[in-house]
Amino acid sequence: MSHDFQSTDSVRTAKPLRHVQTAVFPTPLSLRLGGTLPSIEVAYETYGALNQDRSNAVLICHAISGDSHVSRHDENDDPGWWETLVGPGRPVDTDRYFVISSNLLGGCRGTTGPSTIDPSTGAPYGRDFPLITVEDMVDVQKRLVDLLGIRRLRAVVGGSLGGHQTLCWATRYPEQVQTGVVLGSSSRLTSQALAFDVVGRNAIQTDPKFHDGQYYDTGDFPHMGLAIARMLGHITYLSSESMSKRFDVNRHEPRDIATQFEKRFSVGSYLAYQGDQFVGRFDANSYVSITLAMDHFDLGGTHEERVRALRSARCDWLVISFSSDWLFPPAQSWNLVAAMTSLDQDVSYCEIQTDGGHDGFLLPDDIEAYGPLVRAKLGDMRPRTPDRRKSDDRIIELIPPGSSVLDLGCGEGDLLARLRERGEARLVGVDVSTPLIAATMQHGVDAIDCDLNLGLPQFHDSTFDYVVISSTLQVVPNIEQLLTDSLRVGKRAIVSFANFGYETLRTMFAREGRVPKAPGSYAFEWYDTPNRRFPSIQDVLDLCDKMNVTVEDARYYDDSKGIRIAESDDPNLKADTAVLILRGR
Amino acid sequence: MSHDFQSTDSVRTAKPLRHVQTAVFPTPLSLRLGGTLPSIEVAYETYGALNQDRSNAVLICHAISGDSHVSRHDENDDPGWWETLVGPGRPVDTDRYFVISSNLLGGCRGTTGPSTIDPSTGAPYGRDFPLITVEDMVDVQKRLVDLLGIRRLRAVVGGSLGGHQTLCWATRYPEQVQTGVVLGSSSRLTSQALAFDVVGRNAIQTDPKFHDGQYYDTGDFPHMGLAIARMLGHITYLSSESMSKRFDVNRHEPRDIATQFEKRFSVGSYLAYQGDQFVGRFDANSYVSITLAMDHFDLGGTHEERVRALRSARCDWLVISFSSDWLFPPAQSWNLVAAMTSLDQDVSYCEIQTDGGHDGFLLPDDIEAYGPLVRAKLGDMRPRTPDRRKSDDRIIELIPPGSSVLDLGCGEGDLLARLRERGEARLVGVDVSTPLIAATMQHGVDAIDCDLNLGLPQFHDSTFDYVVISSTLQVVPNIEQLLTDSLRVGKRAIVSFANFGYETLRTMFAREGRVPKAPGSYAFEWYDTPNRRFPSIQDVLDLCDKMNVTVEDARYYDDSKGIRIAESDDPNLKADTAVLILRGR
Repeated sequence: MSHDFQSTDSVRTAKPLRHVQTAVFPTPLSLRLGGTLPSIEVAYETYGALNQDRSNAVLICHAISGDSHVSRHDENDDPGWWETLVGPGRPVDTDRYFVISSNLLGGCRGTTGPSTIDPSTGAPYGRDFPLITVEDMVDVQKRLVDLLGIRRLRAVVGGSLGGHQTLCWATRYPEQVQTGVVLGSSSRLTSQALAFDVVGRNAIQTDPKFHDGQYYDTGDFPHMGLAIARMLGHITYLSSESMSKRFDVNRHEPRDIATQFEKRFSVGSYLAYQGDQFVGRFDANSYVSITLAMDHFDLGGTHEERVRALRSARCDWLVISFSSDWLFPPAQSWNLVAAMTSLDQDVSYCEIQTDGGHDGFLLPDDIEAYGPLVRAKLGDMRPRTPDRRKSDDRIIELIPPGSSVLDLGCGEGDLLARLRERGEARLVGVDVSTPLIAATMQHGVDAIDCDLNLGLPQFHDSTFDYVVISSTLQVVPNIEQLLTDSLRVGKRAIVSFANFGYETLRTMFAREGRVPKAPGSYAFEWYDTPNRRFPSIQDVLDLCDKMNVTVEDARYYDDSKGIRIAESDDPNLKADTAVLILRGR
Repeated sequence: MSHDFQSTDSVRTAKPLRHVQTAVFPTPLSLRLGGTLPSIEVAYETYGALNQDRSNAVLICHAISGDSHVSRHDENDDPGWWETLVGPGRPVDTDRYFVISSNLLGGCRGTTGPSTIDPSTGAPYGRDFPLITVEDMVDVQKRLVDLLGIRRLRAVVGGSLGGHQTLCWATRYPEQVQTGVVLGSSSRLTSQALAFDVVGRNAIQTDPKFHDGQYYDTGDFPHMGLAIARMLGHITYLSSESMSKRFDVNRHEPRDIATQFEKRFSVGSYLAYQGDQFVGRFDANSYVSITLAMDHFDLGGTHEERVRALRSARCDWLVISFSSDWLFPPAQSWNLVAAMTSLDQDVSYCEIQTDGGHDGFLLPDDIEAYGPLVRAKLGDMRPRTPDRRKSDDRIIELIPPGSSVLDLGCGEGDLLARLRERGEARLVGVDVSTPLIAATMQHGVDAIDCDLNLGLPQFHDSTFDYVVISSTLQVVPNIEQLLTDSLRVGKRAIVSFANFGYETLRTMFAREGRVPKAPGSYAFEWYDTPNRRFPSIQDVLDLCDKMNVTVEDARYYDDSKGIRIAESDDPNLKADTAVLILRGR
């Protein structure tokens, strides 16, 4: 099969996994929606070694069709489904961490599920398998973690449904999770995503060979229904862009594969292949059971509900979304982040730019982009030596050591790194683009991917002692909103900006009649500047006055001459740079 | 049933339509992909009266599940599927137009389709119904139009698959179409949309009751498969936003309806209802046949292919897209427009802002938004009296009568309307927002909805004698691109702009040290101006020089004093407004 016919989701036949271990829990498990399972078996794999104090365990949670085989154990082993994220030297480094990955409750790869023999009847559960939830899945994982003697997980990591499990772990067993890494996930499915699941289950459950879930001893299997559910799932995991790239050119040239499904169109033969392959390795009842658990997962549809649901968490977070993911749109990840910041929980967030769709969290290219964020969150990166800029010196000298600081437009996080050197404090950076988020996180500082034109992350009032707006004012159109929000979430704001009222600029304009062009990093032509706002010091002071904002301190500089300008010496004319400390009244 | 359970697509049981007429064509129809149909019956309805010279006929083309009943014939009649667009006094006004709407080839509402008796066997065609195309559908409509004695259609109007038919009519029978109105359509499906069709057909064709298409005499019907295809279709017709609005609040509260499908979740019971209803009024083979025709429709995947395919058209166009339509994304409509403008065909285009998704073209709210565009395109609107602005006088006096003009940032089209008064010429406006597009079209001038930051519509070189950029320069960040493009598609550009080098502004800045605030419509504060660029006359002249653009003529005004400023009198200081005629070298 050519690459086109490889799924990003591991396409494997259901051959036995060589390194799977099985844990048996004979005590009954009470289920959240009622009922019990009399005993549980869990299939799991581990990677790396547990350290002496058992503090280096990382739990990986898989999505609908994954299993315990997250990575290969040796060169001869089959590749795992998250091979490029987990392994020796990889972002989740099995040379440092003891990685645990188990097949989830309801699954069909070794852990108790609908195809398991019900001890009370001696036959597979089938339709009698109870309705399970993500909470039940996590309770089973908890038993395994306890069995392994681990009191606290260094991290729980999962994408999609795996992200739901991570969220559930952090809120259900808050003392046992140090870090939660949530990729391409949400507090609950969109109604659209839920509707696709409904259609998939209808395809399975109305397949006459489903026999109301009791097909195990009939010789039948709801091949058609399960394959159709899988085809549908596949479309939702990809983006429209990536499907176009893959199937537009040879649209009318299907592959000639052996299948009972329609083979017209290249995408048709691809879907037929994916559907058929899936049937060879997955159980229809498991598909129904697991998707129902996912559909019932609900940490809330409103900000208030999400805040309530996440309040119990004690971990720090890394949340990652994928720009072209329409099944779990980035806005849903952002909503999680908003709840976390509202709760003053430590969180880093990044939206990975990709056309990989929901599958992004599994794609090597996207893992290359977000891998450094995971590595940094786990504290595995040597911090860079921060750039020591004079412009930052001026801000640092205004901030008492130990202050909490939010840096809006933090760039690579150098200012925050230098504040960090002075001692531990709550420090958060905000900027756009993955490399800036990664660079800031490399300093061990949380960073949040956020376009300031859309507002600040949702911190509660006075979360920070200082909000820094350094060389950022001129690119944000909505200055009033920026200042208002900054003085809400911070007790004070430090605003550093270039003075467009500087005398050489005024002279240039007055004498030459050309729109002034500032020096240094503001030196753009009028027709290509990325700047949106061009205030003088007086303009900013006037705005503060209008907004009832107190200017507590003001420092003015002429950097071209390397001198400080006294307040009495007409800084609006003579200073090219200003640093103001602002406070709301 | 509550409103929630009403589809925008008319949910009707398959009761006979009272006003349907049937045309019988005994001559065989040759099909594009091979084979023939020995004879054809067409079910159709007409509204209004054909005028003396038979010039007022409008053909309405329906989408997958529509039929000939586009609107009610009288008060006692059932509502039609496009009730608010078509009818007395409506945008397609049956008091003025003779409206024809026929069930399409392959359908199951009266026109020949898979359920029709094959005269050679005396049994329904079933699986023997040949593979049909949109071209074949149009050929059948052509027979009907010929039968009605109509040589030229005033317009062909259709959304989705109906849009495909419209495109096909215009290119296949170019002399017979005066205007093509294409809503929520494309040159071909995206691979994603095609994939959804594949899954839907697989659900139908693997339903054991499908009997390989020969279910008519079995007493069976592939209820499950067809319902599942319909559920899936429904999700793709709605937007994620509208599904959230409808189903998020009461997510876990399904309705208790009688169905064999899953009833969990509010959206689940909705889909089950929609699926079951559809089965009562639609034939599974028709669904397969019609979706296959849609999937095979292909006017090209590249700009060059689309240009080639549309080259034969002789009509003028109205293309409308819907912002939240992800099945036929606005970019696909834009690609059609790009091919049309490349071919110098007359086209108006608008993207309707809606969360209605693909269904937008059927929704009353969205019809209210786009109805005026249809009305204007059909020439049914009394033109407004244009505003006669002094700023426009200055531009008009520079343009010789009979010149073709593209107005970038045309607003409500007053300048174009005044040029129009001087005689017929090719006039096109470009702006954003539906009301501006509608207002410009009301003047009988084509208007194209286009964000100039993303570039100009794709006209070929020197399409226009003049490109007008009036009071627009200051809001477009990429000025170089705007000028380059304008001087490519136009022989000359006329640029009118406010001079930020005007002396009162300079004085304000030099003396007060405040960023200058221009008068009139440019009078914003530095922190809230929508303007992006603030050039002086000298700045613009410098840029022209750098870009090798010739300034053929320049006129300067001080509008605050109501005088013209001579070129020798330092206009950069003394003029507040400039009008330049530019030409590429």
